[in-house]
Amino acid sequence: MSINVNAIKYGILFLLLFSLQSKAQSVKLFNHISNEVYTLHSKVLNQDRQFYIHVPEQDSTKPNKALPVLYLLDGENHFHILSSYINYLSHFKIFPQVIVVGIINIDRKKDLTPSHSTKTYDGKEDTTLKPSGGNEQFLQFIETELMPHIEINYKTTSYKILAGHSFGGIATINCMLTHPDMFNAYIAVSPSFWWDNNYMLKLTEAKLAKLSSLKKRFFYSDGNEGTFFHTDLLKFDSLITNRKLKGLEYMYKNYPEETHMTEPIVAYFDALRFILRD
Amino acid sequence: MSINVNAIKYGILFLLLFSLQSKAQSVKLFNHISNEVYTLHSKVLNQDRQFYIHVPEQDSTKPNKALPVLYLLDGENHFHILSSYINYLSHFKIFPQVIVVGIINIDRKKDLTPSHSTKTYDGKEDTTLKPSGGNEQFLQFIETELMPHIEINYKTTSYKILAGHSFGGIATINCMLTHPDMFNAYIAVSPSFWWDNNYMLKLTEAKLAKLSSLKKRFFYSDGNEGTFFHTDLLKFDSLITNRKLKGLEYMYKNYPEETHMTEPIVAYFDALRFILRD
Repeated sequence: MSINVNAIKYGILFLLLFSLQSKAQSVKLFNHISNEVYTLHSKVLNQDRQFYIHVPEQDSTKPNKALPVLYLLDGENHFHILSSYINYLSHFKIFPQVIVVGIINIDRKKDLTPSHSTKTYDGKEDTTLKPSGGNEQFLQFIETELMPHIEINYKTTSYKILAGHSFGGIATINCMLTHPDMFNAYIAVSPSFWWDNNYMLKLTEAKLAKLSSLKKRFFYSDGNEGTFFHTDLLKFDSLITNRKLKGLEYMYKNYPEETHMTEPIVAYFDALRFILRD
Repeated sequence: MSINVNAIKYGILFLLLFSLQSKAQSVKLFNHISNEVYTLHSKVLNQDRQFYIHVPEQDSTKPNKALPVLYLLDGENHFHILSSYINYLSHFKIFPQVIVVGIINIDRKKDLTPSHSTKTYDGKEDTTLKPSGGNEQFLQFIETELMPHIEINYKTTSYKILAGHSFGGIATINCMLTHPDMFNAYIAVSPSFWWDNNYMLKLTEAKLAKLSSLKKRFFYSDGNEGTFFHTDLLKFDSLITNRKLKGLEYMYKNYPEETHMTEPIVAYFDALRFILRD
């Protein structure tokens, strides 16, 4: 594991840019969103991995305050949206401050799928799914390489959240069930339960049966995405509700006005509100 | 009117930063949100004014495509949220591309209030409201200085949207009623109708009576902000609805789960969806 030296170069340029900008400002601005892309070589995945990092403005009365960390899958899609929510709402003391790490995909069909399958939701063969089933390895990258990197370089509390959408949703649930010690809270927006003949519903049933408690906060949701999609979410919600797991605080929300791609905008806000509520 | 030369300096540094970053990227990233602060000297207001500008990624098959412009009040609060919505949703072809200009406040109590008053919503005297009533002058700055600046420097269509929250909401409605040629569409999130003994409700009633058509799109909303606030919105909605103005496409939405400060997150998304729907 090594930090790409370019990240340092960009950091210096960024500081230069930011300090020059500050001079021109007559009002104190709090809502700078980082666009920097950091790179870390992963031995586990045998590739360079890239991610965004957003660190909220420091309160000058509490410098270097340790902050929780939100690890966000599909970072290239949703990082700026979540970071701007956290910036705005923490500035007005509605949310606590949270560091956001937005992991950028190389092959989401490989990294975010918990099992191997080459079939799409309608049963068709899809050759781009050949590398699927790499989620276990990807979670190992997060646990043994990315998390230590973040914890060395930023002042963090032990509270960690994992968030994902679609394939990222089943990856998030897979992580909760198979590595329950990695995170304190989970967000699964429109998890793709159709994957591999409902692989994740079956795994949920099997794993939940062996758990007596799950001290987590967990938000899951779906939109207006077709009957099969919603039916799967209702099945999942029944599994969770019927198990009555000690310590599990969960919320299921359906958004009938949202499509698969618009839902993250409202669902991530509700999810953060639920998870960060105290 | 002049462009602060620092803006050019930052622009060059920014390009340098971005081009270096690009080299390290193995995936094409579309969601860069500008943090640059531009400055323009306003003769109308006799002060330097600052604003953010977000220009969506250019489609390489249609370079220099002319884009509509959204002028956003309280830019320091909501610019990054709206820009990230537009980036994400236009990337997935759900929204059209729109340039966002986020105007940063110096004294919002002066610039965004349509009349002079020194009383808060509960009737108390507030000395910080002494300069209030500057909205007319502020709109002149937008019309005669900011808009020409944007139109010279960016490739724009003639379609323009004005958006504001709270005092920015009454400023938006004031603009629609008193300068109906400036914009094509308006967003007023939680407009502060309580201002100056319902000044804006009275103005709406008077102005609407003289209008036979208003070819605009108009979104307004409120949250869970107390009975007086909601009653005012209902009165305003009745005025609009009863007038049956030709060409006016409007939507009123109430968000019972949102407070005054959380509402912009969901309301701006719904508003953009309504206004940009085709």
